[in-house]
Amino acid sequence: ILESMNGVNGPQNGQPHLDHADGQYFLTEAYKVILEEVLCKGTDVKEKVCDWHDPEELSALLDLELREGGESHHQLLQRVRDVAKYSVKTNHPRFFNQLFAGVDYHSLAGRFLTEALNTSQYTYEVAPVFVLMENVMLTKLRSMVGWPQGDGIFCPGGSVSNMYAMNVARYRAYPQVKVQGLWAVPRLAAFTSQESHYSLCKAASFLGIGLDNVFMVKVNERGCMIPEDLDEKIELARSQGAVPFLVSATSGTTIQGAFDPLDRIADICDKNKLWMHVDAAWGGSVLFSKKHKHLMKGIERADSLAWNPHKMLLAGLQCCVFLLKDNTDLLKQCHCANATYLFQQDKFYDMRMDTGDKSVQCGRKVDCLKLWLMWKAVGTEGLAERVDKVFKLARYLVREMSKREGFQLVNEPQFVNVCFWYIPPSLRGKEGNNDYQEKLSKVAPVIKERMMRKGSMMVGYQPLREKVNFFRMVIISPHISQEDMDFFLDEIERLGKDLYNAL
Amino acid sequence: ILESMNGVNGPQNGQPHLDHADGQYFLTEAYKVILEEVLCKGTDVKEKVCDWHDPEELSALLDLELREGGESHHQLLQRVRDVAKYSVKTNHPRFFNQLFAGVDYHSLAGRFLTEALNTSQYTYEVAPVFVLMENVMLTKLRSMVGWPQGDGIFCPGGSVSNMYAMNVARYRAYPQVKVQGLWAVPRLAAFTSQESHYSLCKAASFLGIGLDNVFMVKVNERGCMIPEDLDEKIELARSQGAVPFLVSATSGTTIQGAFDPLDRIADICDKNKLWMHVDAAWGGSVLFSKKHKHLMKGIERADSLAWNPHKMLLAGLQCCVFLLKDNTDLLKQCHCANATYLFQQDKFYDMRMDTGDKSVQCGRKVDCLKLWLMWKAVGTEGLAERVDKVFKLARYLVREMSKREGFQLVNEPQFVNVCFWYIPPSLRGKEGNNDYQEKLSKVAPVIKERMMRKGSMMVGYQPLREKVNFFRMVIISPHISQEDMDFFLDEIERLGKDLYNAL
Ligand SMILES: Cc1ncc(COP(=O)(O)O)c(C=O)c1O
Ligand SMILES: Cc1ncc(COP(=O)(O)O)c(C=O)c1O
Repeated sequence: ILESMNGVNGPQNGQPHLDHADGQYFLTEAYKVILEEVLCKGTDVKEKVCDWHDPEELSALLDLELREGGESHHQLLQRVRDVAKYSVKTNHPRFFNQLFAGVDYHSLAGRFLTEALNTSQYTYEVAPVFVLMENVMLTKLRSMVGWPQGDGIFCPGGSVSNMYAMNVARYRAYPQVKVQGLWAVPRLAAFTSQESHYSLCKAASFLGIGLDNVFMVKVNERGCMIPEDLDEKIELARSQGAVPFLVSATSGTTIQGAFDPLDRIADICDKNKLWMHVDAAWGGSVLFSKKHKHLMKGIERADSLAWNPHKMLLAGLQCCVFLLKDNTDLLKQCHCANATYLFQQDKFYDMRMDTGDKSVQCGRKVDCLKLWLMWKAVGTEGLAERVDKVFKLARYLVREMSKREGFQLVNEPQFVNVCFWYIPPSLRGKEGNNDYQEKLSKVAPVIKERMMRKGSMMVGYQPLREKVNFFRMVIISPHISQEDMDFFLDEIERLGKDLYNAL
Repeated sequence: ILESMNGVNGPQNGQPHLDHADGQYFLTEAYKVILEEVLCKGTDVKEKVCDWHDPEELSALLDLELREGGESHHQLLQRVRDVAKYSVKTNHPRFFNQLFAGVDYHSLAGRFLTEALNTSQYTYEVAPVFVLMENVMLTKLRSMVGWPQGDGIFCPGGSVSNMYAMNVARYRAYPQVKVQGLWAVPRLAAFTSQESHYSLCKAASFLGIGLDNVFMVKVNERGCMIPEDLDEKIELARSQGAVPFLVSATSGTTIQGAFDPLDRIADICDKNKLWMHVDAAWGGSVLFSKKHKHLMKGIERADSLAWNPHKMLLAGLQCCVFLLKDNTDLLKQCHCANATYLFQQDKFYDMRMDTGDKSVQCGRKVDCLKLWLMWKAVGTEGLAERVDKVFKLARYLVREMSKREGFQLVNEPQFVNVCFWYIPPSLRGKEGNNDYQEKLSKVAPVIKERMMRKGSMMVGYQPLREKVNFFRMVIISPHISQEDMDFFLDEIERLGKDLYNAL
């Protein structure tokens, strides 16, 4: 067959690349490379997590430039191989760097199908299966929150979900804002914790509310919002002449994995008649677990929720829902523009099936199929088991850390984020020294560079207010085992134990 | 092999669905179904474009519900088949319903690879190849616009690109808006044409500017913005005490495919010191064509541009760029939040490679690879040929229409949108009748219903201000031929010729 493909690449027939059989042949060859390089090698613990090169070097290796002419079948397949080779293997058992990791093959099949079908989620007419599927999915997820009715939509990111919450809350408080803009309403104030995700701040800027009008509520030592301080901040805002309209609590903070006390926050929102949003982009998946869903006790009292199944559930980037308790069509009223070329009012089917006007997007990727197919495959029980499994592994890691010298927890974790300092032998017992914190702050970056250049694993670090750089280990993929945890600890020691001898 | 798979689906080993080989086996089986159902049958002119069912009926056919337990390998493959079967075939040669259509197999291979690699575009650390690739791509696209320097980013939709333009323009005019909100700045006014895309209005609402502050500039009979009216609207806004800050011109309007006169609009923006944005989500791809790029003459004078390669270039949903001429890092300054857990300042590589803070998203899908791989395959020339080809086909269609009775153009097209009324024999010569317009308005919806139920093709219709429902035919896919155009006209006649005899 390969021989008969030689003609594909030249423009000899005047219509290069327009033969379906040739195209499908290329696709199948590319599929084989993906299977081999990304899915087999990419999940093999004996292979590197990444094949690190500095930007200039990698540029030279890749030849990214776009030219007048096309390339041959053979060259293009090599491109596929190179892209795979030099990309980070987020499916690898030693990838702990972000709040997503690992692969689910049913989800991946759903993603391939989504790409091949290439449609947009806005009308029943072009996405009949996916409009129905999104509805079923939203209903199911809402029922897990404890909302028998409500509304929702899939968004391109938890950040966008958080923006939606802010916009809908603002619209509920002052519907005239949609038409007249913020000049027609009093200065508004939103509240979220100091350790909430930065997307709340980005949302406030983007929506024209401004960073100054996001009041940062203090957290306790574990990173959970302090309700008393929320009360105070609400008073403070009022005393400045601003009108409180939204509290965004977090279930599973980005760094520490903290869960804000939802019940107490709900009381405050009730009392002050504020929209209560919960950013559960990261933590929402605990709702699957009988054992751990208490972390989100009170969630049913919220008005809206952001939840990213692409994080803990492995649904694949991006899979993010925004859910609301409201069933008065607030989301659509807030966002609709009633474009007649998409949402004709004389359609022959039930026009309520055209859900696109709930979004501020026009074209919208289908993000529900991958989650749906995975769920059909493993069932609610299977997803629950996965959540329980990674909790257990995180507990195991914490226990093992306590047995080793040099690992110091930032906090006892509530979730699967394990935040810790690695103290190399040369620094142990030197906490009293003047330069201790400064020296400690340099440990994580050096270990990180070493692990990247070696390609042995990937984990993130960051400072947090007065705390100097510490590692944030996160356990997400159910493919991970206790051996991977042991390796993790060994490897941190291997990479860091000479520090400050060498530096 | 199938036999040995029987054990995959039960939780007998305590870790269902966690075997890579089993998962890859499922994926490969699913790949075969996708190839067969979506790519072979789905592009076969003898098959239906859609297998229409009303929502209740389709719900019943699909069994979408999510349950406690998982399903078997066999059942899941049937799910894949069913989703494919009942979905609209947007790759089909008779799909003309949206501003995307057709399939490019190199792009699709890029999309599969993107999904398998599952990473986020924010840092060089997790997306080394894609950070470099996005840069190359943005530079190349900017050079086609005529900007040797500048900035840009891939966005989840042209609507988001338009929002970015509005936000950056606002920030340039009043940087304090990011921190203090709109209350700290005067009422702002944006300008766009009556036939611009509704996303400009959605953007104004979302960003807190409000619909009332979007001034709708009149268009001429072909749908192009009238510069004199722009001048007047700017005066009008000023007379109301608002401060003009942005003009959004359109290159390729959604319905009529009109191109606003960019040079004249640029003169007005220069004179008034306004940010000039061009929404070329749909029309931007004419820049590939030596013959047709004159439609965007003056584009290099704009400040920013939205361009969706997923539309005319077949890159696949979503592939949308926002480009700016600015090279002072305005985009990043406007959107950044400097989150330390992602954008550490003590990284061991050049931190300018971490481009994520230019976005209001956090996680961001990789949307550049599919376009890059397709471009490598066909070259700039190949993409240019495709653009020229669909222009020719649109001209052919217009010529053929003029030879038939009953097809009345709304306007001589500038682009590949061919807008027309079909006048059934019973209405011909009755233009003078009182009920003519009302009757004509019902023709397109009936024909549409009939074609959907038959599954023979898909094309959209809409009213436009005083004009009653007309069809908008768009030619996008280079797989389309003159025969498809002939079929289109024949089919409209077949479906509509009895109208008002039957009604
Ligand atoms: C708590 C929290 N909220 C929101 C987000 C943003 O989600 P996304 O990256 O999908 O925009 C994140 C991302 O990590 C997060 O941790
Ligand atoms: C002119 C124009 N601008 C913007 C958009 C919005 O693009 P998207 O659907 O990617 O948000 C469209 C969509 O059709 C369009 O036609």
